[in-house]
Amino acid sequence: MPLDKLTIIGTGLLGGSIGLAARARSLAKRVSALVRRPESVAECQAFGVADEVTLDLAEAVAGTDLIVLCTPISGMAALAKRTLPHLKPDAVVTDVGSTKQQLVAELTPLCAGAAAHFVGSHPMAGSEQTGPAAARANLFDGTVCVVTPTGDTHAGALATVNDFWAGLGSQPVAMPADTHDRLVARCSHLPHLLASALSRRVLDPAHGEQQAQLCATGFRDMTRLAAGSPVMWRDIVGSNRDDILAAIDEFTDELGQLRGLITDDSPEAIEAWLQQAKATRDDWNHSADPG
Amino acid sequence: MPLDKLTIIGTGLLGGSIGLAARARSLAKRVSALVRRPESVAECQAFGVADEVTLDLAEAVAGTDLIVLCTPISGMAALAKRTLPHLKPDAVVTDVGSTKQQLVAELTPLCAGAAAHFVGSHPMAGSEQTGPAAARANLFDGTVCVVTPTGDTHAGALATVNDFWAGLGSQPVAMPADTHDRLVARCSHLPHLLASALSRRVLDPAHGEQQAQLCATGFRDMTRLAAGSPVMWRDIVGSNRDDILAAIDEFTDELGQLRGLITDDSPEAIEAWLQQAKATRDDWNHSADPG
Repeated sequence: MPLDKLTIIGTGLLGGSIGLAARARSLAKRVSALVRRPESVAECQAFGVADEVTLDLAEAVAGTDLIVLCTPISGMAALAKRTLPHLKPDAVVTDVGSTKQQLVAELTPLCAGAAAHFVGSHPMAGSEQTGPAAARANLFDGTVCVVTPTGDTHAGALATVNDFWAGLGSQPVAMPADTHDRLVARCSHLPHLLASALSRRVLDPAHGEQQAQLCATGFRDMTRLAAGSPVMWRDIVGSNRDDILAAIDEFTDELGQLRGLITDDSPEAIEAWLQQAKATRDDWNHSADPG
Repeated sequence: MPLDKLTIIGTGLLGGSIGLAARARSLAKRVSALVRRPESVAECQAFGVADEVTLDLAEAVAGTDLIVLCTPISGMAALAKRTLPHLKPDAVVTDVGSTKQQLVAELTPLCAGAAAHFVGSHPMAGSEQTGPAAARANLFDGTVCVVTPTGDTHAGALATVNDFWAGLGSQPVAMPADTHDRLVARCSHLPHLLASALSRRVLDPAHGEQQAQLCATGFRDMTRLAAGSPVMWRDIVGSNRDDILAAIDEFTDELGQLRGLITDDSPEAIEAWLQQAKATRDDWNHSADPG
């Protein structure tokens, strides 16, 4: 059953891709997009990310069944406050924020107070690219989308959000917000920070031009994430501090163990350490992409 | 001027790709390849990595102008000792080993004692894939190849090696072996070990199935290198211990600085740290690929 109206607030890579995918898959009779800058209206219309693109919040959300907040996480609560007076009763609100505990704690009571229902989401899809020009209708194909209901989440709203992500091509996976934040600190936030640290340290001009010249495809892959938005990632780090610190400590401990094996000049132990890394990675890669 | 005969010893990803590229670009009138296992003869012939594929060392190197050692670094000195009695005078020997100080120190006098000339090489090209099936003729296009002459290197031999890599599509860059080892410890060996440490720590089964399920494209890129050969990387680590330890310490220091910014809950400093990473990486990426 398609939605009568879907509203996307913010049309960056994720919001734009949601719009393209929802239209391509006919998930709603109408897709409306709210943008902040006047010049974005024509741009988003040209990319086809929505049926209607507007600068007017009330117009964007009037009569809508599902609102997807696709703005930076630091402004989402304030945005929700401005949005709620314009919603119809039982409207469902979800988001695409990369951390969930803070958002769920803030938005759940806000929405409930306005007779709407909040369900947190985090699609595990993205790119270091930003903006609607990078959006694509197949961004969610074969991905996982974490959905973070609480004990009080409205069952119908949860079903709407699950169906929505499944309709976009993603597999919804439910877990508590704190579990989500702990897991993504390891597998998403930590890798991003490692890529940034590697860029900073290896490309330090103090090492000279030849250092940069020797950086090849492995380095390119290992630092791709560092090209992401510093503002977006500042917010992610700020909203998941404890879990990220724990992930950094775990990683530093692992690197310290390796350091010990190298200091001991222990080829068998180094090979076993590398072999274990390869085995876990190969197993994961095979299960993630059995084709 | 093409070589009369080029000999490749070992036909994995690099040796196989050298053979394919040398044949495609007519760098030698004859390309000969030495393989170790009988079943590799037909395989390498089928892939077209050489005009002649043989198990016989003397036959492979008879009358050859240039020998490229493409075997694991731990066995290269012993291999060179067996090879030298069969070389014609003034034959040039190079290699593709990922570390250079040990090899240059061992092979330079060995070759000189047999009236041959050694010049170390390290093409900054590769993949986590291995074997002749992964070889491709364009592997060296647009890459850099480090060449490590010493003060005593024969000028003609150095020119032969430089011309050879340029002929394969790579840009030869000369530097001392110890400089090479220090630079690649940072930009190649460290990234590999970070990828392995990340795989080990994130995919630890203790974190549960949902942890692996949330690993997405960023994690995939950040751990690709961990799929490389543990034996090859054990040897690389063993042959470049001090530089790798220094690179690990530099990186740990960088991560510790970030940890401090997060502990201090300093959004401006975290954003500046991320911004610096993005700027250096964007600059490098642009200069590495201006297209």
